Amino acid sequence: MTLAILNGPNLNLLGEREPSIYGRQSFDQYFSRLCERYPQHQLVQQQENEEGKLVAALQHWGGKADGIILNPAAFSHTSIAVADAVAALKIPVVEVHISNLYRREGFRQQSYVSAYAAGLISGLGLHGYALAVEWFGMPGTTAIPD
Amino acid sequence: MTLAILNGPNLNLLGEREPSIYGRQSFDQYFSRLCERYPQHQLVQQQENEEGKLVAALQHWGGKADGIILNPAAFSHTSIAVADAVAALKIPVVEVHISNLYRREGFRQQSYVSAYAAGLISGLGLHGYALAVEWFGMPGTTAIPD
Amino acid sequence: MTLAILNGPNLNLLGEREPSIYGRQSFDQYFSRLCERYPQHQLVQQQENEEGKLVAALQHWGGKADGIILNPAAFSHTSIAVADAVAALKIPVVEVHISNLYRREGFRQQSYVSAYAAGLISGLGLHGYALAVEWFGMPGTTAIPD
Amino acid sequence: MTLAILNGPNLNLLGEREPSIYGRQSFDQYFSRLCERYPQHQLVQQQENEEGKLVAALQHWGGKADGIILNPAAFSHTSIAVADAVAALKIPVVEVHISNLYRREGFRQQSYVSAYAAGLISGLGLHGYALAVEWFGMPGTTAIPD
Amino acid sequence: MTLAILNGPNLNLLGEREPSIYGRQSFDQYFSRLCERYPQHQLVQQQENEEGKLVAALQHWGGKADGIILNPAAFSHTSIAVADAVAALKIPVVEVHISNLYRREGFRQQSYVSAYAAGLISGLGLHGYALAVEWFGMPGTTAIPD
Amino acid sequence: MTLAILNGPNLNLLGEREPSIYGRQSFDQYFSRLCERYPQHQLVQQQENEEGKLVAALQHWGGKADGIILNPAAFSHTSIAVADAVAALKIPVVEVHISNLYRREGFRQQSYVSAYAAGLISGLGLHGYALAVEWFGMPGTTAIPD
Amino acid sequence: MTLAILNGPNLNLLGEREPSIYGRQSFDQYFSRLCERYPQHQLVQQQENEEGKLVAALQHWGGKADGIILNPAAFSHTSIAVADAVAALKIPVVEVHISNLYRREGFRQQSYVSAYAAGLISGLGLHGYALAVEWFGMPGTTAIPD
Amino acid sequence: MTLAILNGPNLNLLGEREPSIYGRQSFDQYFSRLCERYPQHQLVQQQENEEGKLVAALQHWGGKADGIILNPAAFSHTSIAVADAVAALKIPVVEVHISNLYRREGFRQQSYVSAYAAGLISGLGLHGYALAVEWFGMPGTTAIPD
Amino acid sequence: MTLAILNGPNLNLLGEREPSIYGRQSFDQYFSRLCERYPQHQLVQQQENEEGKLVAALQHWGGKADGIILNPAAFSHTSIAVADAVAALKIPVVEVHISNLYRREGFRQQSYVSAYAAGLISGLGLHGYALAVEWFGMPGTTAIPD
Amino acid sequence: MTLAILNGPNLNLLGEREPSIYGRQSFDQYFSRLCERYPQHQLVQQQENEEGKLVAALQHWGGKADGIILNPAAFSHTSIAVADAVAALKIPVVEVHISNLYRREGFRQQSYVSAYAAGLISGLGLHGYALAVEWFGMPGTTAIPD
Amino acid sequence: MTLAILNGPNLNLLGEREPSIYGRQSFDQYFSRLCERYPQHQLVQQQENEEGKLVAALQHWGGKADGIILNPAAFSHTSIAVADAVAALKIPVVEVHISNLYRREGFRQQSYVSAYAAGLISGLGLHGYALAVEWFGMPGTTAIPD
Amino acid sequence: MTLAILNGPNLNLLGEREPSIYGRQSFDQYFSRLCERYPQHQLVQQQENEEGKLVAALQHWGGKADGIILNPAAFSHTSIAVADAVAALKIPVVEVHISNLYRREGFRQQSYVSAYAAGLISGLGLHGYALAVEWFGMPGTTAIPD
Repeated sequence: MTLAILNGPNLNLLGEREPSIYGRQSFDQYFSRLCERYPQHQLVQQQENEEGKLVAALQHWGGKADGIILNPAAFSHTSIAVADAVAALKIPVVEVHISNLYRREGFRQQSYVSAYAAGLISGLGLHGYALAVEWFGMPGTTAIPD
Repeated sequence: MTLAILNGPNLNLLGEREPSIYGRQSFDQYFSRLCERYPQHQLVQQQENEEGKLVAALQHWGGKADGIILNPAAFSHTSIAVADAVAALKIPVVEVHISNLYRREGFRQQSYVSAYAAGLISGLGLHGYALAVEWFGMPGTTAIPD
Repeated sequence: MTLAILNGPNLNLLGEREPSIYGRQSFDQYFSRLCERYPQHQLVQQQENEEGKLVAALQHWGGKADGIILNPAAFSHTSIAVADAVAALKIPVVEVHISNLYRREGFRQQSYVSAYAAGLISGLGLHGYALAVEWFGMPGTTAIPD
Repeated sequence: MTLAILNGPNLNLLGEREPSIYGRQSFDQYFSRLCERYPQHQLVQQQENEEGKLVAALQHWGGKADGIILNPAAFSHTSIAVADAVAALKIPVVEVHISNLYRREGFRQQSYVSAYAAGLISGLGLHGYALAVEWFGMPGTTAIPD
Repeated sequence: MTLAILNGPNLNLLGEREPSIYGRQSFDQYFSRLCERYPQHQLVQQQENEEGKLVAALQHWGGKADGIILNPAAFSHTSIAVADAVAALKIPVVEVHISNLYRREGFRQQSYVSAYAAGLISGLGLHGYALAVEWFGMPGTTAIPD
Repeated sequence: MTLAILNGPNLNLLGEREPSIYGRQSFDQYFSRLCERYPQHQLVQQQENEEGKLVAALQHWGGKADGIILNPAAFSHTSIAVADAVAALKIPVVEVHISNLYRREGFRQQSYVSAYAAGLISGLGLHGYALAVEWFGMPGTTAIPD
Repeated sequence: MTLAILNGPNLNLLGEREPSIYGRQSFDQYFSRLCERYPQHQLVQQQENEEGKLVAALQHWGGKADGIILNPAAFSHTSIAVADAVAALKIPVVEVHISNLYRREGFRQQSYVSAYAAGLISGLGLHGYALAVEWFGMPGTTAIPD
Repeated sequence: MTLAILNGPNLNLLGEREPSIYGRQSFDQYFSRLCERYPQHQLVQQQENEEGKLVAALQHWGGKADGIILNPAAFSHTSIAVADAVAALKIPVVEVHISNLYRREGFRQQSYVSAYAAGLISGLGLHGYALAVEWFGMPGTTAIPD
Repeated sequence: MTLAILNGPNLNLLGEREPSIYGRQSFDQYFSRLCERYPQHQLVQQQENEEGKLVAALQHWGGKADGIILNPAAFSHTSIAVADAVAALKIPVVEVHISNLYRREGFRQQSYVSAYAAGLISGLGLHGYALAVEWFGMPGTTAIPD
Repeated sequence: MTLAILNGPNLNLLGEREPSIYGRQSFDQYFSRLCERYPQHQLVQQQENEEGKLVAALQHWGGKADGIILNPAAFSHTSIAVADAVAALKIPVVEVHISNLYRREGFRQQSYVSAYAAGLISGLGLHGYALAVEWFGMPGTTAIPD
Repeated sequence: MTLAILNGPNLNLLGEREPSIYGRQSFDQYFSRLCERYPQHQLVQQQENEEGKLVAALQHWGGKADGIILNPAAFSHTSIAVADAVAALKIPVVEVHISNLYRREGFRQQSYVSAYAAGLISGLGLHGYALAVEWFGMPGTTAIPD
Repeated sequence: MTLAILNGPNLNLLGEREPSIYGRQSFDQYFSRLCERYPQHQLVQQQENEEGKLVAALQHWGGKADGIILNPAAFSHTSIAVADAVAALKIPVVEVHISNLYRREGFRQQSYVSAYAAGLISGLGLHGYALAVEWFGMPGTTAIPD
């Protein structure tokens, strides 16, 4: 199974930015371990600070992968373009957030993406990505109707 | 590890009630398979239709288990008492919803519990419970500060 | 036809509580006359002050009766659990309110139940229950699709 | 007893317009059966597409009938003039809606009329008119204080 | 000076309708006294229950009178058509309300007309009409730019 | 093709009323040119200041024309009765506004009609009517499902 | 009759401040003419920029005058203390605004005072004070129940 | 005087739960001291995690005690059933909150109960219960009209 | 202990103003009795109709007294300056309201002061002041951290 | 006349994405036909998924074309930058939406662009682009003041 | 150039009050340094806790100074009287806030004054006053049209 | 000191776009003068129309400069990604707006950035950039804790 992990803006700072919220591990470090843990899947990852580039990545991997794990970061709350790109996909998308958004500012508690994603994993730290990978390995998930 | 799965109102109807939303499997059937899949954990489950009984269950298992997997169902959106019981716990709680709440009525899109839980898994079907169990087996999760 | 009349919290006080709003007749007195008036139906009644017990009653009578007449009282405005129990039923439910909610506090003017019930009778006094019984005797009502 | 049934805009299309919501029976057909069913009452009916004409009808029948059964249709949600005409009456008015407004657009869920009517019957189909007629035959209804 | 007094819906009931709010005098009785009191003006009056007829009256008198005294009654709060007709006039309009709207329901506290009228007299009883007539006799009023 | 152009309140003042917003041409002048420009269509027009009369016109032309071009003017924002009449039609309706409503008062920026019309042309001046006529001549438009 | 005219903050600038809104006449000039025009009344006036002083003035004149004409200016929209002082009076208060508040910022369109005053005159320029004086000379006004 | 102290959900955790907010003393310890301090009164106490049981307790003690001291905890903000039970009582109820709700989440700042209670003591710690007992010993309190 | 009782606008009218809400006793009469009842404390009182004077009084007594009992009256709902003055104090403040604000207008149900005060006593009549004095005599109250 | 058609994010998917909403024709196919239909105009088109690129395109074509036809897609609802770029132009812009936004999610019913565009064509399918081209050929359109 | 620095309520406490927010320097100390730093300007300062006194100060210095630097403190959010006094001035006003209001309570994030001031400096500490003085020394600032 | 001035979308049009709001000077012209005026600082500037590029610029200069002067333009109101990039910085950011946003559309009056910036300068024209540079030269500013 090919699974694309797509990360939104500022996630290139992971490990440096506000470590009390996001932890001290960079995404590259984490991604290496993830690939080791799930050798049965082909994992790829891409990070974009630009909304249009994230839209393009969704369109691109939508035609190539079996599933997408998307952490839209700030775009969750402001980008209908990203949400529309998710809506246009024919493969399932799992939305992941590292921190618990419900303990933060009000404007972080509404996501345009959630209604179009298969589901949401939020607040469980970087483990959220691993759980999303697990989910794609469970029976019936790629057939879930949108 | 002892993990308590606590389910809120109407989840005793799982498999019968609105199968297009919730699927055709009863929770008991699902729970048996879950126990088989995770023999390394001691799993228990309890379902309550009454708010106060769910509060009591949270207080009870809070003193006995290592983690709680909570699907508060309708109480997510209406019960501050359940949320307060979660806030009072000293072990992590993962909130699980079977269906994708963000495609349903507006009043299902706000949960009093989320701010007090460690994190949220929503819309990934019954697999959400399994993912929560997985999470408790990952490093550092029981130490996550509230 | 078996019809179950289910009453929510504080309706055990009928006849005593705020008689200028609810009248001076107890529900038991009223129910006796109702049974006399409609000998062609099997009428049963149950009153619950606890949300979970009302949920259980809906689940119970949903499998036994041909129709349910539900006065959720305060739960109309605060209980999604009761509304979910109504949504899960396969028989029609008529929602009844004794007083005219639209002359009272703003928070009494929204009911979670109404969207899932077949219909609503409000403000017509205790006669509302009789009208609901009448309705079940009219052609086509039990076949109304939800 | 003389009872006037007053219908608001577009109800002249009943039976043709959106039959999945309103059914396939014209109001005239229904009204004939209603008269047959309740020979003890003098029933009259009037339909108006114009707000001012409905106001005039309320003023007219308010001086002639013992009770009014009013389906204000779209005017429920937009006409304070109709609501004021109801408020000015000295006989009881029962508000009837054929469809369950609580399953439809948000703007159909607030009625200016309800606070001034004796009560409301909603979502019970054309039977709602019959139930309103029944109510006028029950004890104490014409004396209900506004 | 020709001054047209235009009254909106249900004001034909003045003196009968809710006398605790509107008093016991009919508008015709009041209008006779007004004409006697202000012999220097040509006063005319028209009452309409229909929004379109009130729009037409505004268009008509806008071309004939020197000023208009308008009590839009319920249309104040619901009719942009009446407000647009006022906006299209080239003579000043004084909006009059008999009762103090700020002591009544919230929906009576916003008027589409007020922004287009020259000014507003509210809550001063039937005297409000007389004060409006007085105003037209004061210096500079017909020249007030809209 | 028979196309009915229906205009709402105060549009009989076109050319006189607020010419900085609506221009200096009367609708009759414009309509003559429109008929000349589109000899292949049978164009008719009707203007109403009364909500109920506009409802009646929609019901009437709905049974006679192939399409309706509707400028509901002020009724766009206040009349559910007009919107319901549009919803009940079996031919397409194009909603037209002469001025750009999005530069005017907030209450002009929501239209009950839009959700029931096939589409909307706003702010393009009187040309909006011509564009609507053009549209009816394009392939597939009368078959657009509602 | 003794009538006290009380003016709120910044009205000491009348004639200088924003003359396009408030005109070029100072209040003192206007007041002299008013006294000449109504020799049958004893008119007094007081202007205060301080909320507490305006409260004190209301308490003072409430015990001495037969009626109060109050232009609370900015305090209309921000001072419950002034509104409470009006509510505590046993003589009628007429609220006057010189400009048409409904054409100005949204925060000027709600007045705490209006619900406690007998009535409101707004947008009719300085003439509003004269009209209020006229009103006190009309029959029954001082007896209007609050 | 018999005074019943009724506590809502999670207050059985007092002394353990979030001690920075609620302190380190259990309610039983506090209650013993309260009984010693006020030997002139008969004090009883009951704690319930279930809404319906709290409703029942209010109905029960409403018929037996001279006054009720109610800390509805989370139910303050979510239970109209509890508020209705208070409204139905014929003895005074004092609402007590231990913590200062106005420094906490927004949803804790509105109480359905307050409008039906005689009064409210909030944020003064466990002393709030003692103050409520004091109040019942002051002149005229049991006669305060609801 | 020196305790300062500070009263906001219009409370100098106590006993005269709206006695059905506030009672018939003047504050001076009540204060005399309070001093007699609590001879162990040095009680002082000050009433101000002006916001700035109340701010000054808070600043003054904040440096001299051991505690402040503040009834901000109308300023509760409109004055951030008073709330800021409370926030700047280093001694505890108890907010007192004589009437039950939750039965009155909506704008009386939000207080800027409450979040900065130690706690709130509302609706318990003039006894509220006595209860606040009692509280200052209880253990630990002056040490309560803000 | 040179007319630039600018399309926002995800419109490169036209014909593939959600065909029940957007149809099965790609924009390139449609554009070819449009050029054939209007040989008298020089038509160009550009699609951008990136907000900043769309801003740049507006700035670029604003200096080169005689008019712009803009379908901002998701950016309509989220991009003030695009709206500002439109506001800065000195040539008219017609906003086009293919689907009827008023039948879709609430967040699609507000466009930052509309107030700055000359006008709007919505819900008329791909024909909307042709109608916009037609409009630019009509008299007086390029001179419309912004 | 004469520049008046006007400070609103509680700013007399600067240096004492909440030093974590406002710092430990009194305004007098700061003002001395400011005068030394800008010997080319005549600087004056005035602090008022009373709204009306601040209004008077604005009126006074508006006729005497070349510019005003205003920190309205709490009055920013509650006083339309102060805002009106600013609007009436014929010299520029710079609004200064010491702390970053956007990190504090929601009610501190809206200022009635800002729309009438030339501009705003917020969150830059006491330096904000110096920056405002700098601004008045820059070219063209006193001519900026309001 | 190295200070980076970062400008958001459409600011490349400065001097051309809406000169009545933004003036007639291009930013390059202004920047040259700024560099001359502050030779003691190393000033750099960058303008981006793309959100992601502005995020990248913030990340880049955050590691190289001593302070950032940011005019996010339209992104202030729509971009959480830009705000997050500011929040992740370890050097102070001053937010600058050229025009007074509080006199413009409502949607321009809320900035996601402000809560994360050290402070805000708004409405003081291009001088705002100079004032921000001044601020960085004042004592203690680079040490201000975020």
